[in-house]
Amino acid sequence: MPKNWSDQPVLTLLSDFGDRDVYVAVMKGVIAQINPKLQVVDLTHQIPPQNIAAARFCLMNAYPYFPEGTVHIVVVDPGVGSRRRAIAVEFADGFLVGPDNGIFSGVLAQSPAIAVVELTNSQYWRTLEPSKTFHGRDIFAPVGAHLASGVSLQHLGQEIEPASLVQMNMKNCTQTATGWSGGIQYIDYFGNLVSNIPGDCIQGKKWCVQVSGLMIPGCDTYSDVKLGEAAALIGSHGWVEIAINSGDAHSQLQINLQDPLEVISY
Amino acid sequence: MPKNWSDQPVLTLLSDFGDRDVYVAVMKGVIAQINPKLQVVDLTHQIPPQNIAAARFCLMNAYPYFPEGTVHIVVVDPGVGSRRRAIAVEFADGFLVGPDNGIFSGVLAQSPAIAVVELTNSQYWRTLEPSKTFHGRDIFAPVGAHLASGVSLQHLGQEIEPASLVQMNMKNCTQTATGWSGGIQYIDYFGNLVSNIPGDCIQGKKWCVQVSGLMIPGCDTYSDVKLGEAAALIGSHGWVEIAINSGDAHSQLQINLQDPLEVISY
Amino acid sequence: MPKNWSDQPVLTLLSDFGDRDVYVAVMKGVIAQINPKLQVVDLTHQIPPQNIAAARFCLMNAYPYFPEGTVHIVVVDPGVGSRRRAIAVEFADGFLVGPDNGIFSGVLAQSPAIAVVELTNSQYWRTLEPSKTFHGRDIFAPVGAHLASGVSLQHLGQEIEPASLVQMNMKNCTQTATGWSGGIQYIDYFGNLVSNIPGDCIQGKKWCVQVSGLMIPGCDTYSDVKLGEAAALIGSHGWVEIAINSGDAHSQLQINLQDPLEVISY
Repeated sequence: MPKNWSDQPVLTLLSDFGDRDVYVAVMKGVIAQINPKLQVVDLTHQIPPQNIAAARFCLMNAYPYFPEGTVHIVVVDPGVGSRRRAIAVEFADGFLVGPDNGIFSGVLAQSPAIAVVELTNSQYWRTLEPSKTFHGRDIFAPVGAHLASGVSLQHLGQEIEPASLVQMNMKNCTQTATGWSGGIQYIDYFGNLVSNIPGDCIQGKKWCVQVSGLMIPGCDTYSDVKLGEAAALIGSHGWVEIAINSGDAHSQLQINLQDPLEVISY
Repeated sequence: MPKNWSDQPVLTLLSDFGDRDVYVAVMKGVIAQINPKLQVVDLTHQIPPQNIAAARFCLMNAYPYFPEGTVHIVVVDPGVGSRRRAIAVEFADGFLVGPDNGIFSGVLAQSPAIAVVELTNSQYWRTLEPSKTFHGRDIFAPVGAHLASGVSLQHLGQEIEPASLVQMNMKNCTQTATGWSGGIQYIDYFGNLVSNIPGDCIQGKKWCVQVSGLMIPGCDTYSDVKLGEAAALIGSHGWVEIAINSGDAHSQLQINLQDPLEVISY
Repeated sequence: MPKNWSDQPVLTLLSDFGDRDVYVAVMKGVIAQINPKLQVVDLTHQIPPQNIAAARFCLMNAYPYFPEGTVHIVVVDPGVGSRRRAIAVEFADGFLVGPDNGIFSGVLAQSPAIAVVELTNSQYWRTLEPSKTFHGRDIFAPVGAHLASGVSLQHLGQEIEPASLVQMNMKNCTQTATGWSGGIQYIDYFGNLVSNIPGDCIQGKKWCVQVSGLMIPGCDTYSDVKLGEAAALIGSHGWVEIAINSGDAHSQLQINLQDPLEVISY
């Protein structure tokens, strides 16, 4: 049974399109053609090209702050034109629309899918012959606009198993004898390494991070360590992260996305 | 007789103002002062300063995706303060507002003007004494907001002949014995040379491009040629374009805006 | 007694958050959670990090163009987490919401505060335990959304004296025997030095600027002086400014924010 969503639904857009070209505007035009009363909010369009981990991370940080029923359209889509599935997901807080490539795995780990469809019903596309390179315009934007306008998920295509969705192959965050174990889920623009261990885990205790054979002290700010030294701290989105004071932890420490790490409290 | 436009009209803004200063926001404020219910979509504000060809190209790529009746305001205006005309155009898909300097010539080649007025009626300006440097704020934004709110084109000023509008002096795209002939209509940020020959012209055939004494092979992607070599391909907006694999075709090939080229199929 | 504001109120957002992360989107989500019908306009989010003078200057240039009753939320907040006050201000043209650090001093010098409250009423915050680093999300955005939705200023917290607000310690613009005296209020991205002396002061006269022991000629454009030489002119926002033709006046002339200068007419 559909929930009684707000009569002023919100759509968000997240992509790697940047701001120089009109790709984002074209998606907004397509949405306005379907329903000009919809409100569209840009999450960001500065995702590094085809960086699924960054899109997954940004969406996970933003979705909890939007109204119930919000439709999040994500177009970071290195597989466009291949056989990757186009999907729409209903979850407790709203809807997700985009390619099935792992971008939704962060949100769905926090708030599981209620139902998933593959977007096979071309009646809700912009055209029966979508471009091979721009499903954002031809499939995801129109499908999102129809969802936000009250079309039910089940009309958009064939139901599929939530368990069949592509996952980002990330080490779970789990408790250990001495603290917590997890993995690097995101590397930001400055080379800071953001783990999937929430900062809450280490409130009020002394701690350090063990990663790639290194022991990195838990700090309040970068400046608690000397220039060029590594520090572990709780970043602005609330996760344990590793940074180098005035440096680039990613390249200098040779630690990569999905590498495991441990937080040790003492 | 005016068409029955949507009761939720959309305005778009296209400019070379960038995102550091408040110029774009000021135009949105002026629009909201006139009608706070209007929905405003940014096409892009990253047009290179005073680059009329880029503005013309971006508008042409975006307008088909907006609802009928949309008002497109374009402020790329190197002649502001000079005697260039300020105009508003009605065409089949909506309205165009901005300086008469060729920025609308791409759209109007695809969808001819129905009526054009010079914006001489200061009643619809923000002030009787507009700034000499910011007609976007003082003339184009308020006129666009009034148009989108139902004021008829003819009230905005004196009708002028569509044929009198400034054209970008571009070689037409025409069929030849061996293929198609056209010109370079846009040079993108990476130095790729975008022609005005649509990719449709060469569907399913072997082809090459003859330009500036060079013969450049038609390819599917950049990577079909060696690093540093030139390739012709169909770009993301659907036009034949010339690129150099990991290079800058504009500066390396010394080919410029409006230079002629030919597509030869065989 | 509250004014009868428009039934379609506008909020603006001004910050130093940039466009790479989702911070701005999160604020818009919080606003939509409270009232999805509010219209939000970005002034700019490219304020240099923690640059209060730049935020003050941008807000002062933008606010006059927005509808009466607009709520301006400013989050340039180097003191977040310290004891700086969070405030909301009612003035003739609308409302200001943000930290009490001088960002509003430019607007309020032009249009004085009618009433000011410290944001002590946590009922209008997003959470009873706001983050120590992101009051934009937890206090300013929700308070602004409530204000724009009709909550009266006095409900938001304890009234405080307008005279107690933090000022940017700027030399006033005053008339002298030979012209006008003022200070540098803003240094733009290109190193141009923008004073707080309005261009109107020198309409139609010969003039020069005396600053830091230098005498700089008043010009119409940069190009009236040779490459590398300093010129005084009236900038795009209407203030007397000092620029170096193809140079950086800030670093080359060693003139800083709040330094005094004089305009001499003759």
